[in-house]
Amino acid sequence: MPEGAEVPAVTVPRLTLYLRKLRELRAQGVQRVSSQELAASLGVNAAQIRKDLSRFGGLGTRGVGYDVAVLAEEMTRQLGLDRTWNVIIVGAGLLGTALARYRGFAAQGFHLVAMFDRSPAVIGARYGSGEDDVVRPVDELEAFCRAHPVDIAMVTVPAAAAEETVARLAAAGVRAILNFAPVRVPAPEGVVVRQVDLSSELMALSFFLARERG
Amino acid sequence: MPEGAEVPAVTVPRLTLYLRKLRELRAQGVQRVSSQELAASLGVNAAQIRKDLSRFGGLGTRGVGYDVAVLAEEMTRQLGLDRTWNVIIVGAGLLGTALARYRGFAAQGFHLVAMFDRSPAVIGARYGSGEDDVVRPVDELEAFCRAHPVDIAMVTVPAAAAEETVARLAAAGVRAILNFAPVRVPAPEGVVVRQVDLSSELMALSFFLARERG
Repeated sequence: MPEGAEVPAVTVPRLTLYLRKLRELRAQGVQRVSSQELAASLGVNAAQIRKDLSRFGGLGTRGVGYDVAVLAEEMTRQLGLDRTWNVIIVGAGLLGTALARYRGFAAQGFHLVAMFDRSPAVIGARYGSGEDDVVRPVDELEAFCRAHPVDIAMVTVPAAAAEETVARLAAAGVRAILNFAPVRVPAPEGVVVRQVDLSSELMALSFFLARERG
Repeated sequence: MPEGAEVPAVTVPRLTLYLRKLRELRAQGVQRVSSQELAASLGVNAAQIRKDLSRFGGLGTRGVGYDVAVLAEEMTRQLGLDRTWNVIIVGAGLLGTALARYRGFAAQGFHLVAMFDRSPAVIGARYGSGEDDVVRPVDELEAFCRAHPVDIAMVTVPAAAAEETVARLAAAGVRAILNFAPVRVPAPEGVVVRQVDLSSELMALSFFLARERG
C-alpha cells in the first residue's frame, strides 16, 4: 500500500472521527471492532467506513473486524499525529487566548510556541504557564519564524487583517494555516489554508431542528 | 421530492460548504454553476456533489448547471437557516465568551439569548451590548428555559461538569446541544449532542504536512 497519498482531504474529518473512537475502544480494552459496530456508534455508513479504511491497507478481516490497536496506530501515523508540530497563534483576542488555553491540542502533539498581537494592550500578557508564554508584538513574526521552526499558524485576527496576516505567514515560510477570522482568505501558492467556520456546527443542529419541526 | 428527510447527518458539513460557496457566487452575480465548477473550487468530487444535491430535487440541468440563487435558497431552507434559533451558552469562561462575541452566528440566524455560569466571579459580567447581556447564575437555567424558548445550547464548561450540564439542559427541554467540553457526552433520549473537537482541524493540517514531508 502506498503512503496514503491518494487519501482525499474530504475524508480527513471522518478519519479523525474514526481515530477518536478507536482510541476510546482501546482505552476500554476492546481488541477488535467491525465496520458495522463503528457505523452504529458513529452514525456513518458501514460501506463508507470500509472504503475509507481500505486506503490504509488490508487491516480488516471479514467476519473478524479490525484490530483496534493496529488500526489506531496506523491512522495516528497517517494523520501525522505520531510527531510534534510547532504552532503559533496570531491574534491574542478572546478566541486566540481561548485556543491557547484549550486542553487537548498539546495532547495531540500540537505545541504552542508563540502568540502574537499588534495591540500594545495585550503585548506582554501571559497566556500560559511557561516562562516565555507572553504575547509578542506581531512585528517580530518574521524574525521569530526565521529563528524557530513553525509548522502551523492559527489566525484569530479581525476579518480586515486576515488576508495580510496570511500573506505575511506564507512569506515567512509557514505552510499550513487555520483561519478563524470570519472571512475567506485565498491560499497563497504552496500553502494550505483551512477556513474554520464555527457556525457550521450550529447549522448541523438547525438542520436537525428544522427537519424535526417541519 | 420529500422534505429531505433522507439526508444523512454526515452530508450536512458538505451542504454548509456548498451553501457558503453558492452565497459567494450569488454575491459575485454568478447565475449558474456546474457540479464540475463547484468540485474544482471546493475540492469535493463532482459525482458526490451531484448525488448530494440530487436529494434536493431536480435543480440541476445537464450542460447548463444549477441555478445559483434557487439552489442557495433551497439549501438555506433545508438547513433551517431561513428562521431564527434561540441559543444559550453554559460556561462563561474564555471559550464561552469568545463564542458569545463571535461575529457570524447572528448573521446566520443564531440569536444568543442568555449565558450562564456557576462562578460568582463572572455572574453579572457583561458579554454583549444588549441591556440583558449579563452572565446569569446557572441555578436559573431551568427557570429561564421554562420562561423562554431555547432551541440550542452551547456547552463550554470544564470537562468534569459537561455530562451534568447536558443532563440538566435535556431535562429543561433543550433538544440540540453543541458540546465544546473536551469530553464525549452521550446524548440523552430525544436530544442531539454534537461534539466539537477543535483539534480535528489541526489534524487536517498535520495530515497535509505529514504527507508533504513524508
